[in-house]
Amino acid sequence: MTRVLLTGFEPFGGERVNPSWQAVWRLAAAPPDGCDATAVQLPCVFGAALDTLRAAVERTDPEVVVCVGQAGGRADLTVERMAVNVNDAVIPDNAGRQPIDAPVVGGGPVGYFATLPVKACVAAARTAGVPASVSQTAGTYVCNHVFYGLMHLIATQRPAVRGGFVHIPYAPEQVLDRALPSMPVTLAVEGLRAVVAAAASQRGDIAMLGGATH
Amino acid sequence: MTRVLLTGFEPFGGERVNPSWQAVWRLAAAPPDGCDATAVQLPCVFGAALDTLRAAVERTDPEVVVCVGQAGGRADLTVERMAVNVNDAVIPDNAGRQPIDAPVVGGGPVGYFATLPVKACVAAARTAGVPASVSQTAGTYVCNHVFYGLMHLIATQRPAVRGGFVHIPYAPEQVLDRALPSMPVTLAVEGLRAVVAAAASQRGDIAMLGGATH
Amino acid sequence: MTRVLLTGFEPFGGERVNPSWQAVWRLAAAPPDGCDATAVQLPCVFGAALDTLRAAVERTDPEVVVCVGQAGGRADLTVERMAVNVNDAVIPDNAGRQPIDAPVVGGGPVGYFATLPVKACVAAARTAGVPASVSQTAGTYVCNHVFYGLMHLIATQRPAVRGGFVHIPYAPEQVLDRALPSMPVTLAVEGLRAVVAAAASQRGDIAMLGGATH
Amino acid sequence: MTRVLLTGFEPFGGERVNPSWQAVWRLAAAPPDGCDATAVQLPCVFGAALDTLRAAVERTDPEVVVCVGQAGGRADLTVERMAVNVNDAVIPDNAGRQPIDAPVVGGGPVGYFATLPVKACVAAARTAGVPASVSQTAGTYVCNHVFYGLMHLIATQRPAVRGGFVHIPYAPEQVLDRALPSMPVTLAVEGLRAVVAAAASQRGDIAMLGGATH
Repeated sequence: MTRVLLTGFEPFGGERVNPSWQAVWRLAAAPPDGCDATAVQLPCVFGAALDTLRAAVERTDPEVVVCVGQAGGRADLTVERMAVNVNDAVIPDNAGRQPIDAPVVGGGPVGYFATLPVKACVAAARTAGVPASVSQTAGTYVCNHVFYGLMHLIATQRPAVRGGFVHIPYAPEQVLDRALPSMPVTLAVEGLRAVVAAAASQRGDIAMLGGATH
Repeated sequence: MTRVLLTGFEPFGGERVNPSWQAVWRLAAAPPDGCDATAVQLPCVFGAALDTLRAAVERTDPEVVVCVGQAGGRADLTVERMAVNVNDAVIPDNAGRQPIDAPVVGGGPVGYFATLPVKACVAAARTAGVPASVSQTAGTYVCNHVFYGLMHLIATQRPAVRGGFVHIPYAPEQVLDRALPSMPVTLAVEGLRAVVAAAASQRGDIAMLGGATH
Repeated sequence: MTRVLLTGFEPFGGERVNPSWQAVWRLAAAPPDGCDATAVQLPCVFGAALDTLRAAVERTDPEVVVCVGQAGGRADLTVERMAVNVNDAVIPDNAGRQPIDAPVVGGGPVGYFATLPVKACVAAARTAGVPASVSQTAGTYVCNHVFYGLMHLIATQRPAVRGGFVHIPYAPEQVLDRALPSMPVTLAVEGLRAVVAAAASQRGDIAMLGGATH
Repeated sequence: MTRVLLTGFEPFGGERVNPSWQAVWRLAAAPPDGCDATAVQLPCVFGAALDTLRAAVERTDPEVVVCVGQAGGRADLTVERMAVNVNDAVIPDNAGRQPIDAPVVGGGPVGYFATLPVKACVAAARTAGVPASVSQTAGTYVCNHVFYGLMHLIATQRPAVRGGFVHIPYAPEQVLDRALPSMPVTLAVEGLRAVVAAAASQRGDIAMLGGATH
């Protein structure tokens, strides 16, 4: 059995739910064959989110870590390619803090690539019937903060872990009257299950289109 | 029992499926309480689509008619406010015809409002958990062609019928690698069921925001 | 000399300027060859806007009327195809009124087509180097209100007038920090000049793609 | 006098012009006060673009380097925050090559931050009346390739140089019939002049909102 750690976030930005937590909670209850999954909810708070993540890694000793967040406005499941060493918040976090251009880890490298097989994960989600693509940026808010912190932890202490970050769209209930893209949580769960299965079963990535001209 | 006629389209524009047909076929098999529904597939062909619609109206003698089409790129279920008397095709229809600025009905009025309670239908879809909004234009292609033809038929021959047009987004399977908004057909069906129930149960509309500044 | 009446709006929706007034004011000072133009500013107020328009038509006895409005978020100059007989405001007008689903003209027809040669106007703007397209809806706010009122006036009292409505994007100064599309007023003026010249010189329209699938 | 090197690209992706070259050519002819600028056109070719850039740096010994590229679809001038060590092309370059997930510099770090004062540059463009924002990703095509190569050159050989990358929107002539955002080259030049002036006059950055939630 592959030990998998999944994280989702509490609601933020005035939302009443966060589909990332709804999704990973369900996925942990029905993980892919051959996987044993734990789901942990992270606060949407700089610093505290990473503390919770680190404690969960310590506790569960995972081989695969997939952190999941809400990307309001995106239309598909996106597997993030890289984390960047900056906290630059356009809205306050849930503790009221709003760092501007501060490093996630002082002295850390500018960026880390996910150690998930990013394109294999995208392809797996599509095969499962879930619209998916590679994202070139996870932003500079708490999602990226957690992603960078995870990859720094992996780089410095747990090099064998395959880890990364996946963004999912709003749930339909969040955009009933907003004409914004959404994805039912059940569909996001199917996509995430395929992502986890791909991450658990293969280390190398596949050659597939997934870049951006800008 | 309220007699309901539902129509969906065959695929067009290079797509292999059309979620409008997938949805109305399912909905006809499980209509709202108190409704008896028939689903008919229309060809995506100017003229022939209307012939098929008119024959279906003749055959089923409906009290409510909801024509449904695919609006690729829209993020939510949209209830169309008005039909316009113009065929103006940016791509050929499935018979290869591409009319430019021709009337749907020679000598017909410029526009018709839907006789569905448009905003009540939108509100009902939202209450059912389906993102929905009013659309100010159904375009100028076969969807609008059918919508206008339906409303002309109602205005000239069947004034008691509540009729209109609803657009639904792409199905996820159509946009697996395109990062465009989608809505699972099962969710669209739930929204359409609420629309039909609202149309069957109330004639007057509700006062609700639903306009556009431009 | 062709007598041309141009209208633009005062600012609304929290903006400090309205590029439609900035543009028509400039255009009236430098109209196309063979045209004599008057620019009038309309209040962004249901009813009062139409009163001002009607008075200006009475005073200037125009052969061509082009009403211009701001379409925040659109990327190009859009020539409106049709006006609809509904006031449905999502924000209050500048007098604080917010009609919902009320007719512009009680008992008036559902819609009017512009009597401008819409596609010839679009083509002329493009030839002048200005991105332009046909719009299928002018919305349901004060812009459409004025457009419908103008077309009703033309239909009932001044059938020889070529009239219509053109939307232009935000000016750059309005979106400095919003990452929304914009068009410098000077470029909009060039596009509008081409539109007016086309409207002044030709009555019939051209066959050109300009529809929408939805 | 501050020595400034500007680069723009040749057309790519089926376009007939590239506004980045049109803009930097004009800017070099009229640089900000106190600056002496050279403009160099880069081929849109992986490898060759960097060779040309390196030669230009060698030849001009600049204190400030601003590479400029076209970001078709973006609405404003965007100052890129970071470069990433990956070439991942979704379309072939102008030499027909299409690398997938290859490093720009084998063994190089995952990312580099621009050494321009990114937010001060954005603020300066806005003050000059040009819509502008921070971009979190320069993509994975030749633009990012050049950006990464520049920052690697600076990091390894010319640490005092303030360098970075700016994307500008399509020129209006490129989108006459596409309803996509555009910016006149003259306006882009004004924005770039402000960016260069900010980069030439200040080393430290300012605290200003400019992040992204995802």
